Amino acid sequence: MRSLIKHVLRREEPCDQLHVAGWARTRRDSKAFSFLELNDGSCLGNLQIVADAGIPGYEDVARMNTGAAIEIHGKLIPSPAAGQKWEMHASSLKLLGGVPEDYPLQKKGHSQEFLRSIAHLRPRTNLYGAVFRTRSRMAYAVHRFFQERDFICVHTPIITASDCEGAGEMFRVTTLPDDKIARETEDFFGKRAYLTVSGQLEGETFACALSNIYTFGPTFRAENSNTSRHAAEFWMIEPEVAFCDLAGDMDLAEALVKFLVQEMLDHHEGDLEIFSQFVDKGLRERLEFVASRPFERISYTEAVALLKASGAKFDYPVEYGLNLQSEHERWLTEVHFKKPVTVFNYPKEIKPFYMRLNDDDKTVTAMDVLVPGIGEIVGGSQREERLDVLMENFRKHNLDAEAYGWYADLRKYGSVPHAGFGLGFERMLMFVTGMANIRDVIPFARTPGHCEF
Amino acid sequence: MRSLIKHVLRREEPCDQLHVAGWARTRRDSKAFSFLELNDGSCLGNLQIVADAGIPGYEDVARMNTGAAIEIHGKLIPSPAAGQKWEMHASSLKLLGGVPEDYPLQKKGHSQEFLRSIAHLRPRTNLYGAVFRTRSRMAYAVHRFFQERDFICVHTPIITASDCEGAGEMFRVTTLPDDKIARETEDFFGKRAYLTVSGQLEGETFACALSNIYTFGPTFRAENSNTSRHAAEFWMIEPEVAFCDLAGDMDLAEALVKFLVQEMLDHHEGDLEIFSQFVDKGLRERLEFVASRPFERISYTEAVALLKASGAKFDYPVEYGLNLQSEHERWLTEVHFKKPVTVFNYPKEIKPFYMRLNDDDKTVTAMDVLVPGIGEIVGGSQREERLDVLMENFRKHNLDAEAYGWYADLRKYGSVPHAGFGLGFERMLMFVTGMANIRDVIPFARTPGHCEF
Repeated sequence: MRSLIKHVLRREEPCDQLHVAGWARTRRDSKAFSFLELNDGSCLGNLQIVADAGIPGYEDVARMNTGAAIEIHGKLIPSPAAGQKWEMHASSLKLLGGVPEDYPLQKKGHSQEFLRSIAHLRPRTNLYGAVFRTRSRMAYAVHRFFQERDFICVHTPIITASDCEGAGEMFRVTTLPDDKIARETEDFFGKRAYLTVSGQLEGETFACALSNIYTFGPTFRAENSNTSRHAAEFWMIEPEVAFCDLAGDMDLAEALVKFLVQEMLDHHEGDLEIFSQFVDKGLRERLEFVASRPFERISYTEAVALLKASGAKFDYPVEYGLNLQSEHERWLTEVHFKKPVTVFNYPKEIKPFYMRLNDDDKTVTAMDVLVPGIGEIVGGSQREERLDVLMENFRKHNLDAEAYGWYADLRKYGSVPHAGFGLGFERMLMFVTGMANIRDVIPFARTPGHCEF
Repeated sequence: MRSLIKHVLRREEPCDQLHVAGWARTRRDSKAFSFLELNDGSCLGNLQIVADAGIPGYEDVARMNTGAAIEIHGKLIPSPAAGQKWEMHASSLKLLGGVPEDYPLQKKGHSQEFLRSIAHLRPRTNLYGAVFRTRSRMAYAVHRFFQERDFICVHTPIITASDCEGAGEMFRVTTLPDDKIARETEDFFGKRAYLTVSGQLEGETFACALSNIYTFGPTFRAENSNTSRHAAEFWMIEPEVAFCDLAGDMDLAEALVKFLVQEMLDHHEGDLEIFSQFVDKGLRERLEFVASRPFERISYTEAVALLKASGAKFDYPVEYGLNLQSEHERWLTEVHFKKPVTVFNYPKEIKPFYMRLNDDDKTVTAMDVLVPGIGEIVGGSQREERLDVLMENFRKHNLDAEAYGWYADLRKYGSVPHAGFGLGFERMLMFVTGMANIRDVIPFARTPGHCEF
């Protein structure tokens, strides 16, 4: 039975019969034996193999170059070398798959741009192995967080006929042949269909039946944005809680962000080291800082006043009624408060139709969580649960109330106060790894002009 | 702090200060008090509320009809009534949202067809609450199964330029205006893009770096199939294991199916009762049977011989070289073996290009798991890891080898034996709930002509 290297490196006792397999990271030969560093992707660490000349399979050792796949039997013994507890003494080697000389991942530094062009091979590098193990660990932590708190996972639809944000930047889904694209009644669904930008509205229908729900799935934006923080396809986490107000929503968002940060600190299998060493030297300190302190909470009005009084030079104006820009978010989190900040109660004019109107008739119960280095990572709100106010919102936002009839039904039948938020999973990954480009925390990134693999 | 009814019903001790909220299932009034059955979706069970006339909020009690949202404070006391441990004695009631007389979910039976037309409200019924709690529990069990076995979760792309199965029944994704649909170089990705039918090929690239991976996400088929087992959008679970052969693959599939069945038996919070009572009387017995016995394993050749010798009347012919039909799968699992059956080594002509050719040069290392009542629930294979055989397969299947160059790279650089499978999540849900139509285990089903909500 094959052992994962992650388990081998953690062993307490030596072992007489060990079976491992993986890919060679490096090899050094002497006359009588060879050293191999073997990695199987289960963790950052390699297992050092000592293979004496003459053991079965040794005849292929010259072909066991960086990237070659090898299967090894032998025993695990304490390593006399510094810096490692164990090494493996091979009794047989088997070359499963060699590598020709054009193997792109030679033992040298490669640019992230180049590695993106071989996205099918980059998880074989130390850095991207760490990124994608972290992505998996964080995804599981998201499910654990919600399931342990009795939230029910809902798979909201990917193909949809409605536009949650009313922004219109959606991908169309069709089966029409090229010359018939306009004849939408002949299309697969008998009408125009799109890729979802958010599962929120459908999620609300389930919260209004099952109390606490969350979605965690892909969402899509057809924005022509070529920035390091935008992708056309990304994963979003969207909880929705019945009988919950804005304060409860802010509590939940803060708890989730802290839980994920703590997960990264506690269960990283060595991956945090590579991020701290090669990507972002201050990473661990920043994560510890965020995990251990309450987030600041200020209203949008207070935030604008602080920014105006700051004396800082901003490229974009700060004015009540305008959206906060990235530079403003960074000033609040990095310069002024030096910690995550939750900003709440935004002017109604800059927020979507579904947010609950406050009694001041000027602001809505929106909230954004801003974190150092990234800016906005969470956006949420208490939802408008009053049917008459919601209908008025449809009118003001020029939305077809009839198309949203099923959504309005939630306010007609047993309406409840409820709230939720969206957390961009890739932005969270950027925050916990220090990776600067969203393309580098997604297995195969989709951006304008890019749909390879 | 509000308590979930699921926690309240499980309490060991009474409680003086209880706060709950939910929706009324029924109400009975007498002169001096009212009984309310309150459900909050956290479990199948209702909490019985006793509200004495005159407590704060009682003035609205006449409007607390089926479906109304109510918040209640009070104390939990042992119930004198039969069949329930606890009841709640209200000290105050608050009507959060009433229901008009046209509320579609009155206390009577509704057809599944009708409930599909109000998919935003159906999770408020006992049956669909149970279905969607089960879906969440099973989804989490899928992640636990793989994460506890050191599999890494990979989010393979939804939008793709390649067709895993080569079947061509894909949805196109576009941002072109109607009259420009043919000009694909002007489209968002600069080329034609589609919704994925499977994450397998991309998953293989990660298995060939990280050893053991799985995907769990939405997949799409643009087949014009109006059956009870087909949907245009469904979730699929696809593990992929490096250094694994067909036998290991069959072991993994069997372990996963049994784990999920056992999860349903052990942690259903009462939901299994409603399925057993109203949907499928033999359900629990069948689940226990499947969980406790090894699956039968037979080759395709043996299966064909058994079917031919069976004397059974089939609508479709049984002949070596033809696909097994649903009726054949059911005979094998329900009539002959009376348990799940894994059929392996299918003729190469009826299977896709990526399956490993056996030494007989006639069959490939395919395997399907068939279960009673559903038929095929898992399809998998060991993958062809030999570059020359794979290239020959591209030719035989009329596939453009250049477009699959990145996939072939896995065989060029450090190739390893590897295997994986796909488990249709909705079919698994049909199996553990007894629900007969795939539309009824998906929150908002997408089928030809249907893309509501």
